Amino acid sequence: MKNEVCTVAFYQVVIAEVLATMLFVLLGVGSALSWPSALPEILQVAFAFGLAIATLIQAVGHVSGAHINPAVTVAFLVGQKISLLRAMTYLVAQVVGAIAGAGVIHQVTPQEIRGTLAVNGLSDGVSVGQAVAVELILTCLLVLCVFASTDSRRTDNVGSPALSLGLTVTAGHLLGIYFTGCSMNPARSWGPAVIMGNVKDHWFFGWAPCRGGGILASLIYNITLTPDTRSLSERVDVLKGTFESEEEWEEMTRRSLWRNSKPARVQGLVGTGLSLP
Amino acid sequence: MKNEVCTVAFYQVVIAEVLATMLFVLLGVGSALSWPSALPEILQVAFAFGLAIATLIQAVGHVSGAHINPAVTVAFLVGQKISLLRAMTYLVAQVVGAIAGAGVIHQVTPQEIRGTLAVNGLSDGVSVGQAVAVELILTCLLVLCVFASTDSRRTDNVGSPALSLGLTVTAGHLLGIYFTGCSMNPARSWGPAVIMGNVKDHWFFGWAPCRGGGILASLIYNITLTPDTRSLSERVDVLKGTFESEEEWEEMTRRSLWRNSKPARVQGLVGTGLSLP
Amino acid sequence: MKNEVCTVAFYQVVIAEVLATMLFVLLGVGSALSWPSALPEILQVAFAFGLAIATLIQAVGHVSGAHINPAVTVAFLVGQKISLLRAMTYLVAQVVGAIAGAGVIHQVTPQEIRGTLAVNGLSDGVSVGQAVAVELILTCLLVLCVFASTDSRRTDNVGSPALSLGLTVTAGHLLGIYFTGCSMNPARSWGPAVIMGNVKDHWFFGWAPCRGGGILASLIYNITLTPDTRSLSERVDVLKGTFESEEEWEEMTRRSLWRNSKPARVQGLVGTGLSLP
Amino acid sequence: MKNEVCTVAFYQVVIAEVLATMLFVLLGVGSALSWPSALPEILQVAFAFGLAIATLIQAVGHVSGAHINPAVTVAFLVGQKISLLRAMTYLVAQVVGAIAGAGVIHQVTPQEIRGTLAVNGLSDGVSVGQAVAVELILTCLLVLCVFASTDSRRTDNVGSPALSLGLTVTAGHLLGIYFTGCSMNPARSWGPAVIMGNVKDHWFFGWAPCRGGGILASLIYNITLTPDTRSLSERVDVLKGTFESEEEWEEMTRRSLWRNSKPARVQGLVGTGLSLP
Repeated sequence: MKNEVCTVAFYQVVIAEVLATMLFVLLGVGSALSWPSALPEILQVAFAFGLAIATLIQAVGHVSGAHINPAVTVAFLVGQKISLLRAMTYLVAQVVGAIAGAGVIHQVTPQEIRGTLAVNGLSDGVSVGQAVAVELILTCLLVLCVFASTDSRRTDNVGSPALSLGLTVTAGHLLGIYFTGCSMNPARSWGPAVIMGNVKDHWFFGWAPCRGGGILASLIYNITLTPDTRSLSERVDVLKGTFESEEEWEEMTRRSLWRNSKPARVQGLVGTGLSLP
Repeated sequence: MKNEVCTVAFYQVVIAEVLATMLFVLLGVGSALSWPSALPEILQVAFAFGLAIATLIQAVGHVSGAHINPAVTVAFLVGQKISLLRAMTYLVAQVVGAIAGAGVIHQVTPQEIRGTLAVNGLSDGVSVGQAVAVELILTCLLVLCVFASTDSRRTDNVGSPALSLGLTVTAGHLLGIYFTGCSMNPARSWGPAVIMGNVKDHWFFGWAPCRGGGILASLIYNITLTPDTRSLSERVDVLKGTFESEEEWEEMTRRSLWRNSKPARVQGLVGTGLSLP
Repeated sequence: MKNEVCTVAFYQVVIAEVLATMLFVLLGVGSALSWPSALPEILQVAFAFGLAIATLIQAVGHVSGAHINPAVTVAFLVGQKISLLRAMTYLVAQVVGAIAGAGVIHQVTPQEIRGTLAVNGLSDGVSVGQAVAVELILTCLLVLCVFASTDSRRTDNVGSPALSLGLTVTAGHLLGIYFTGCSMNPARSWGPAVIMGNVKDHWFFGWAPCRGGGILASLIYNITLTPDTRSLSERVDVLKGTFESEEEWEEMTRRSLWRNSKPARVQGLVGTGLSLP
Repeated sequence: MKNEVCTVAFYQVVIAEVLATMLFVLLGVGSALSWPSALPEILQVAFAFGLAIATLIQAVGHVSGAHINPAVTVAFLVGQKISLLRAMTYLVAQVVGAIAGAGVIHQVTPQEIRGTLAVNGLSDGVSVGQAVAVELILTCLLVLCVFASTDSRRTDNVGSPALSLGLTVTAGHLLGIYFTGCSMNPARSWGPAVIMGNVKDHWFFGWAPCRGGGILASLIYNITLTPDTRSLSERVDVLKGTFESEEEWEEMTRRSLWRNSKPARVQGLVGTGLSLP
């Protein structure tokens, strides 16, 4: 495990996750503020969040797998597709990135436009239970699509995972914005909440969809729809991040990123996650 | 036939169809309600339905073929591409899923916003004949594109079938919403109608486009544009769902899903439909 | 030449062109009418025309090459990529299809909404010269993208030609609608003009962009940017549609459609055009 | 170096860059003018710029690499991926193209609609520092995505670089329009500024994002995320544009454009840039 942390590849994936989550929050939240010149429309905000995800998966998908979202990372952990250490690192990187992104957009935006910095919250007339249900369903949909788009067993044409997942985020926002402003991503909720200093009320968006939707999707996809056929020991090895030497780690990382031609189509997106501890 | 029903793969495809149709109705109908904060625009609703389809084909296309739409299933049956048993199962799964999706969105939406739950109906000044014609044409267009996007004989670049078909649904809504709210999919019409208790008036949307447009597209595509060259006995075998043993069925299902490399590009979408009873 | 006309494949491509142009005009024009419930917005109309093209290229691209547009056909003729006979046939098919599409949308639309049936015309303050320039530039852009997307010499990733060309049409409409309602396609202009009985004023949209933009694009692409390296006799053979026997024609058509693996990625779109007389 | 300039391929890439930048400015700026019939919305303008880029990369990506943007060219120079001579040529071509595009749209647009020709500038309440930060971040995002989409070491599915980069431009505009009208591209800023005669105030948009964002992205991508493993002498050769003979140049150009099958997927986009001086 010490070896894993010491490698150059390890720091590259951390930087990629921090950078991508920062830019995601910055782009999404920034485009949803109360601009008086032209109030953002629902479709516009939905495309801003969705195309930001599409862009960032394209930009760093081959480096870190571009989780960008704690719900995705938790679902990958539950599905025994990344090591516990890596999952923890990603979660920290995502929260740091989200807070940084919210901080940057707070600083570059004129004071009178900042408003609540597009924090998530219940819309008028929506109950907590209804909001939990909607966020859980939308996060479940997103994570299902992540698993399906990056399934190395598929040989059919899945197109570009980056575009597909970006448009999934857009689809989710077209419903979710009406209920909660749409989170689908705990980091996106935490970032603005921390910067605006009202974290207390945001435990909900920070954790409910993350725990619920992602885990549910992992169970549906990996147990019901397309059962995982790996042995128990293989899965434990993945969770423990067991590997022999630093050279092997580096080699595996590089190979999974660039040279693994068999499941090449989808490998890049979750490359380091699927084939490494 | 008994073997077919008993396999694990059979229940997987049923779950996939129920789940996908449920999420489709939930996302589409939910994004088209009369939200007072920002009334959904035509383009927004069209993208909500279209991107929902794109997302769900991506998510379960390799499991069930992602019909999600009785018109597609009926057209595949008319084109002798799935067994009668499978078609019946899909139709039931789709109706169940659609009612479940409409039920869930009904429950999670504040009462004053539910309205008619976006049921389909004739717009002012549109006659029944005009509505039938528009729904028939749009469903025919969609099913034509389904056949073309999943034609295993094609070797040219069809791109991602999921995205292509999703955007076809969007294109259809940009016309159809003005006439009928746009169905193109009997299940999408039935779900809200059942939940709102006015099924009596919805026999029209439930069946007209399904029977008409899908069958018309099947005739145009499989007889006129690109004639099906299979022998009569092959087609009968497909309709009857004839196969030798459960192991063979399971093996064929798996193979068609993951390992069939020849028509790999499009196999996933209608994998179990094209190469299995 | 007689052989060419007598083949089954010949009638299939004619049906495909008529059907696709009909559906294109029906979808595009229909979504741009003056619906009182929600006046179509510029972006909405642009996506309606663009996604209609994307859908229809996907649906019949492997049958006829999905020209759908006389400007494309003329440009292919100028670039010596289709026979004179085939070009003439396509042009007739496109005009017939466009008039049929305009006729159908005229019939299914309530009378008070038909208006001018979205015929093209000069916007207020736009001169004839300005309109000619804009239509010429936009059609040139579209045809450049057609040549580039279907160039069998390319080995880089061109993505889905259907989606790419559809979005090109959308991009063009975002500019052109302001000037002329945006034609980019003489058939799209002729259809509504014929149905509304004011063909006299529409010679302009019927021919100017067709002749100008398409021919200009053909010269830029095939002479300047990526010079055509075929011999003069090869080109003459293509224009004359010379071939030995009906069997050879049929075989070539089938091969170019389904089995030509070398330039497979782009072959489908202009399959019958590029490799056949 | 003299050889490089004398080749036919050299002039082809220059024509491609001039043409693409001209059409980009023409389409983007033209669709953002103050049309009284229907004021362009934010989402509409964002799609106009983005889909224009997608179309033009598709059209000339295999000829010149479709930089279209001085920020991209400078970043490629900093990353030692093109020769100094080629970079200088591209920069000149882009500025010439942008001015031509702005000139054409100025001429074809009715006088009362021209307004400021959509020149970039600070929005109300936005400070120079905030504008610099936003433009730098957005240009950095774009160039990161350019490097990632065209990285010949990737074997995962990057989809269509043209579409991906076009949608990145759209995503950037959804934020940037509120701050500065969104440049992300010095040529897009210079063109209208030169035609409107207020270049003096536009040194900012002309250079800040170009120098800052592109260089930053080059450092992040080529040093941090995915370190460049070429030797120093290889890089110097690239910068110097060293090659033996004109035949070799021509052959290399052709090969990189059409026949280089190994990194074929992304080669087209920056073909001449990556593998040639």
